[in-house]
Amino acid sequence: MRKVYLSNIPRREALEKFLAGAEIPQHTEKTAVDEALDRVTSKAVFARYSMPGYHAAAMDGIAVQSQKTFGASDQAPLLLKPEQDYHNINTGEPLPAEFDAVIKVEDVQFHQDGRAEILAPATPWQHVRSVGEDVVSGELIIPSRHPLRPQDLGALLAGGITEIDTLKAPRVAVIPSGSEIIDPGEERKKGSIPDFNSTVIASYLKQWGAHPEVKPSVPDDPDQIREALLGAVKEYELIIINAGSSAGDKDFTYAAIEELGEPFLHGVATRPGKPTILGKIGGKPVIGLPGYPVSAYMSLEWFARPLIYRYFGLPLPERDKLKVTLGRRVVSELGVEEFIRMSVGFVEDRYIANPLTRGAGVTMSLVRADGLLVVPANSLGYEQDETVEIELCRPEAELRHNLLAAGSHDLILDLLASALKERAPYLSLSSAHLGSMGGIAAVGRGQAHLAGAHLFDPESKDYNWPYVEKMMPRADMHLVNLAYRMQGWIVPRGNPDGIETVGNLADSGVSFINRQKGAGTRILFDHLLREEGLSPDRIYGYEREEHTHLNVAAAVAAGTARVGLGILPAARAFDLDFVPLVEERYDLLMNGSFYNSSEAKALFEIITDPHFQEKAEAMGGYSMRDAGKSMGKAN
Amino acid sequence: MRKVYLSNIPRREALEKFLAGAEIPQHTEKTAVDEALDRVTSKAVFARYSMPGYHAAAMDGIAVQSQKTFGASDQAPLLLKPEQDYHNINTGEPLPAEFDAVIKVEDVQFHQDGRAEILAPATPWQHVRSVGEDVVSGELIIPSRHPLRPQDLGALLAGGITEIDTLKAPRVAVIPSGSEIIDPGEERKKGSIPDFNSTVIASYLKQWGAHPEVKPSVPDDPDQIREALLGAVKEYELIIINAGSSAGDKDFTYAAIEELGEPFLHGVATRPGKPTILGKIGGKPVIGLPGYPVSAYMSLEWFARPLIYRYFGLPLPERDKLKVTLGRRVVSELGVEEFIRMSVGFVEDRYIANPLTRGAGVTMSLVRADGLLVVPANSLGYEQDETVEIELCRPEAELRHNLLAAGSHDLILDLLASALKERAPYLSLSSAHLGSMGGIAAVGRGQAHLAGAHLFDPESKDYNWPYVEKMMPRADMHLVNLAYRMQGWIVPRGNPDGIETVGNLADSGVSFINRQKGAGTRILFDHLLREEGLSPDRIYGYEREEHTHLNVAAAVAAGTARVGLGILPAARAFDLDFVPLVEERYDLLMNGSFYNSSEAKALFEIITDPHFQEKAEAMGGYSMRDAGKSMGKAN
Repeated sequence: MRKVYLSNIPRREALEKFLAGAEIPQHTEKTAVDEALDRVTSKAVFARYSMPGYHAAAMDGIAVQSQKTFGASDQAPLLLKPEQDYHNINTGEPLPAEFDAVIKVEDVQFHQDGRAEILAPATPWQHVRSVGEDVVSGELIIPSRHPLRPQDLGALLAGGITEIDTLKAPRVAVIPSGSEIIDPGEERKKGSIPDFNSTVIASYLKQWGAHPEVKPSVPDDPDQIREALLGAVKEYELIIINAGSSAGDKDFTYAAIEELGEPFLHGVATRPGKPTILGKIGGKPVIGLPGYPVSAYMSLEWFARPLIYRYFGLPLPERDKLKVTLGRRVVSELGVEEFIRMSVGFVEDRYIANPLTRGAGVTMSLVRADGLLVVPANSLGYEQDETVEIELCRPEAELRHNLLAAGSHDLILDLLASALKERAPYLSLSSAHLGSMGGIAAVGRGQAHLAGAHLFDPESKDYNWPYVEKMMPRADMHLVNLAYRMQGWIVPRGNPDGIETVGNLADSGVSFINRQKGAGTRILFDHLLREEGLSPDRIYGYEREEHTHLNVAAAVAAGTARVGLGILPAARAFDLDFVPLVEERYDLLMNGSFYNSSEAKALFEIITDPHFQEKAEAMGGYSMRDAGKSMGKAN
Repeated sequence: MRKVYLSNIPRREALEKFLAGAEIPQHTEKTAVDEALDRVTSKAVFARYSMPGYHAAAMDGIAVQSQKTFGASDQAPLLLKPEQDYHNINTGEPLPAEFDAVIKVEDVQFHQDGRAEILAPATPWQHVRSVGEDVVSGELIIPSRHPLRPQDLGALLAGGITEIDTLKAPRVAVIPSGSEIIDPGEERKKGSIPDFNSTVIASYLKQWGAHPEVKPSVPDDPDQIREALLGAVKEYELIIINAGSSAGDKDFTYAAIEELGEPFLHGVATRPGKPTILGKIGGKPVIGLPGYPVSAYMSLEWFARPLIYRYFGLPLPERDKLKVTLGRRVVSELGVEEFIRMSVGFVEDRYIANPLTRGAGVTMSLVRADGLLVVPANSLGYEQDETVEIELCRPEAELRHNLLAAGSHDLILDLLASALKERAPYLSLSSAHLGSMGGIAAVGRGQAHLAGAHLFDPESKDYNWPYVEKMMPRADMHLVNLAYRMQGWIVPRGNPDGIETVGNLADSGVSFINRQKGAGTRILFDHLLREEGLSPDRIYGYEREEHTHLNVAAAVAAGTARVGLGILPAARAFDLDFVPLVEERYDLLMNGSFYNSSEAKALFEIITDPHFQEKAEAMGGYSMRDAGKSMGKAN
């Protein structure tokens, strides 16, 4: 195995190197103004005609000669003869040559004989739009390097310009590479990876004004990679090759660029995004993007976007910034800049942000991200409750109405998030999977609006409220039922190991997949063990933890575990069997101030809507019989 | 003449009425995910497959069974046999069934016999991407009513979704009306108005996600207007008819809507935009927009946009807000809400905003607007230096680098604005036409970065500096030459009145068009009169004022004046004759702090660039021989 090490060049320095060494050459083209929305001018545009091209009435009324109106007053009304002294005129009509003012129709009394009575004189040029009031022939309408907005097109047309010089969209080749790559629509096999990166990369490029073309994918073969790069260099102004940019024994991109052109660097001191290659071949800029989706998209934004914006002569848009309180600690490695995706909500009077997963392979983290926390290379991270500034991925106005659900996750919360968006477009709902205990604590600290919980208390045989009372004895809390749901064994089709009770698992060697500490399902499993007098070490796999029901089912589906405890819809999603074990209560905890808010009201309306309840129950294993009912509140 | 009065319904109330009475019915369609950028989902989308669909290596290295690695350490290295104890594996490759961990290639020493030496044990599942790490089969990928971003498309494809249900773009008919309307490309005649509104309206609708179609224009004829509306109602989901919405004798839109359907209101208490009609015909929403461009676009935004956003179930985006100091007083009428277009720049340490023209017919004011000041109906306006909040039309980051030029306008400033954008994309230059005196005062008050001035001082025979010294004796000011330019008589082709000297004008009856008080050209004209011992009342038209050279030339071209004083390029723009009279100096005034800024440096670089000077001189009547030279500074 060949060992290549990546360099650790700071991101800004890497960008400077790239911009200094590579450039997209400027090409212009004529564009019809009525098709030029969002196009960027390559030249200043000056008006050909004036608008209006003649003096025109600015009001409906009569055109007059102002000097003939002097002296008119309440006491001495003036009578004007048609044709001779006045003309009827409508807004926009040309002022007849002999007239120099317009009197509004409201200020005129017409007599039966056609004469017009006025009670005040007209000042010269009143209510007249003079030639060039809007655009004057010869004046600058639009400067060079200006992205055209709707009103700009109007001014151009008003100034007699129907065609303009614009910058051509740079043509970008997007080359997917990797022998494991298949088309996203193709049937999936073990070891194959659907190429969704190309669609995302091309979509970003389009948003930035470029013209991307996704090329056929290239296997991990040095010759074919060279050939693809050489072919692209002939036709395109920027070449982006995705994956193969790292230093493994099937990563041929760097060697190919080195052989055909000039690599500027290989490796950036930022995560995700480290294994990036920047260089040029035949004078054309080439970017080798990492294969992990999050790394690829970040790297694309850091390096392709500035190159394209420089081509258009446009300033790089900056993300809005927001000060937030961290709901959780964020640790970071020294020497590496990190981009951490965050979920953000406005709880009581401040923005609370929680880190999402940091996996470079988790596209969903970019879907869910409300903001990005950039941890500089010289920082070890931040403590819980610290205030930090993040870059926003969604407008602040939206985040102000983003509800944060912490705690145990249930699929009904997903349904709820979607229903909420449909009903109240201004509201949205983000979930942080903290487990029931973590969620209750987060609501207690004022760092989440609500927490999903299904904690069984063996002593009282009640759910959740005993925990709330213990953890926050004097807090103003409300517990509202969301659903009852069936917990059971998630097992391969046909239940080959015959699992029915927790006893069947003990000493059986059947590999179990557990949930994380603090999760309600974990507490339920421990309770089942205790009831049977079993100790955890008699369960093979007790230590192996997953964070969601779906991930437990996924492990069983993949065959890396034989059984897990979870809910029916998770088993269904993977076409697995489900052995019902116990019905548990799943509630939402919230404090009094949120409970009484309009946002909570919108949630309750959905939860108690029979149509919504039907949809939830159709997922299987749910009963909505008490949905929306109070299950406990502080006096 | 029929008299119809418009109602004065507050804008918000008007919108509520409209939204309560009219609606775009929902239509959905299937869209391929790779073409779904910016489309809005009509249903929540759940994953079909997990991503990854198998346990995969998260690093290049070797796959191992973790339990076989226990005990490995620096002191007791462990040797693993190929095939049996380990497999080479690359990032993304499936983990062979018998293995449960990956050791990074950097942590492995390969021996010649193929055995792999490790110095630390592997923990179970280390460097393994487990099934569903990105997307888990069954989980919510995208909620309903979500506008799709690039990363969303990636997550959908990763979850096995290649086609989704989206909301169809509502089809909108844009009907231009008015007998005076011609195609923007058609030859212009007196009384004809090129239809640029339709292009602007259609472009806005496109930006908001609708599918507009511009229909053939309809003359001011009740039957044809009815017919056009009825035809559109059959085919489209929203009908927008432009102009004819007021209450003149050629405004038939209201009557047509009344006859065919139900008008909700006619007239909104906001300016511009008052003569708006909202109603419905055959259940389809209909908007009658005013004919003046600014009114039309504002009214479109107030009423069409919320309807379309509600259709998509999206929150209406809000403009960013900014606190600014008013550089000039803003007066407003009681009882009417006003939207005033503003230019904004960051001078020293605060944002300075000046109102642009309020003419509803001035498209250019929307091109130039950096922000909108909304004056409520119950306000009489604001005083100079007052702090007000405005809505932004451009990002604040751009405005922070927007240079404000006040004072006398010269066409070279337009060239400069365009050259600046090309050279320094982050910088831009806005001009407020205040005349030389007004400009000097604005720089003195710290409300403009620079002022163009060409004030001749008859005593010292010097330009500008004597005025600066008089107005601001102790201020830290710098005066830099921009150009010398020829002032002369702008006259019809062939100079039919034989104007050569100011004496030719006196008592001649030849109608003169003057410039506003405080303008350098006005001061020059007054100086010429004094030199000849002439009093202003001997000049016919002395009281008639225009604010720019181009507007003076426009008046001469339109025949409403026979002569004006101005610069050669203005005469050229209108194909008029020019009689050179005197060369004057045109300087830029700025304070010391701006003079030493990097922004000023960028300006000086352009001004002294021979290529730029060539372009300026090519406009005619300019000499750039001293461009960039200091013409005075405070010690």
